[in-house]
Amino acid sequence: MAEAPSARTAVRRHPERGRYDRAVIDAILDEGLICHAGFVVDGQPYVIPTIHARLGDALYLHGSAVSRMMRSLSGGFPACVTVTLLDGIVLARSVYDSSMNYRSAVVLGTAREVSDRAEKLRALEAIVEHVARGRWADARRPSEAELKATAVVGMALDECSAKVRTGPPVDDPADVALPIWAGVVPLRMAAGAPEAAPDLPPGVGVPPYVARYERLTG
Amino acid sequence: MAEAPSARTAVRRHPERGRYDRAVIDAILDEGLICHAGFVVDGQPYVIPTIHARLGDALYLHGSAVSRMMRSLSGGFPACVTVTLLDGIVLARSVYDSSMNYRSAVVLGTAREVSDRAEKLRALEAIVEHVARGRWADARRPSEAELKATAVVGMALDECSAKVRTGPPVDDPADVALPIWAGVVPLRMAAGAPEAAPDLPPGVGVPPYVARYERLTG
Repeated sequence: MAEAPSARTAVRRHPERGRYDRAVIDAILDEGLICHAGFVVDGQPYVIPTIHARLGDALYLHGSAVSRMMRSLSGGFPACVTVTLLDGIVLARSVYDSSMNYRSAVVLGTAREVSDRAEKLRALEAIVEHVARGRWADARRPSEAELKATAVVGMALDECSAKVRTGPPVDDPADVALPIWAGVVPLRMAAGAPEAAPDLPPGVGVPPYVARYERLTG
Repeated sequence: MAEAPSARTAVRRHPERGRYDRAVIDAILDEGLICHAGFVVDGQPYVIPTIHARLGDALYLHGSAVSRMMRSLSGGFPACVTVTLLDGIVLARSVYDSSMNYRSAVVLGTAREVSDRAEKLRALEAIVEHVARGRWADARRPSEAELKATAVVGMALDECSAKVRTGPPVDDPADVALPIWAGVVPLRMAAGAPEAAPDLPPGVGVPPYVARYERLTG
């Protein structure tokens, strides 16, 4: 069992849920479609949903080069990126012991702007593939103007932790005999049938990563 | 169309996606099962997933009275609470115009600790009902010791905004004729069949809010 890389990443509430193995953390980062990125401007924290991708030991985010988020993240200030997967609602007999089943990963650090063209393209490929594996080979890739309009930042995965809850509710023994239903309602992100763009020319087939869309798991 | 309540809540990237009507914001806060709460400790932002509930013009969060999050939020420091609903993956022909369909709400402000016992109980009821409407009437309610171990904070909804993207991809006209599939893969949070706790006594029936679990929409 790996240890917390720093005091501030150590899980203090329910320490038994803390996980510091990179395999566990990576699996959460890879399965989660989006993250919530936290940064501070004039003392005010902002939490913004955005797409991320992991490539080895780095987490990449992208956005418009002129957005507040990208300008803040590329400025070398402390940031926090959190990915959360909801796995179920845990209904204990008591309100107090009710909970959620979830897997979350928190990455602390300082983002750096990716200015190297080759690394920027690799990061964008990773982000596209993170959303739909196989898409980079099919889609029209960025033009020079589009590349210039897009900013990419990278964060090292050297200060991160995960928190995981699984399993049924754990009630106070005095509550177990109460005539109250207890258990878990499983939750998952489900993909529906693909909806072709209204302007799609006839004869363009649905690629397999769209027809059978699913998040990478395990 | 309502206007942004402050310069810092105004949606600047894709301003056409900005929504400032409380009805739109409230619907996102109510449908989203969890939020991501952002706060700052020693200059470092933290982004933590947690359950929230809206009650009129207030957003409530709860947690262990000794957690870093609750101590930070109740200290009167600036906070940000964000709720994000993912509605679909938007695949344009070009990587650049690809996107997500989503609805997100961002609440800025300063949280206050809820110390009034009646308000605290109303907030906890709202949180329980937010997760599963009907549960508060069934579950065992908090004891005095449990109430004491639980902290509740409230944030006024007077500085908030929403960002909404819907619909098909919008490609550059020059890309529309490319032989690349374009469209939307709809996403939704799906609930599975309830799993009774292993220690559930025989004869305790599954309540309707569990058997047919769904998030409030619209």
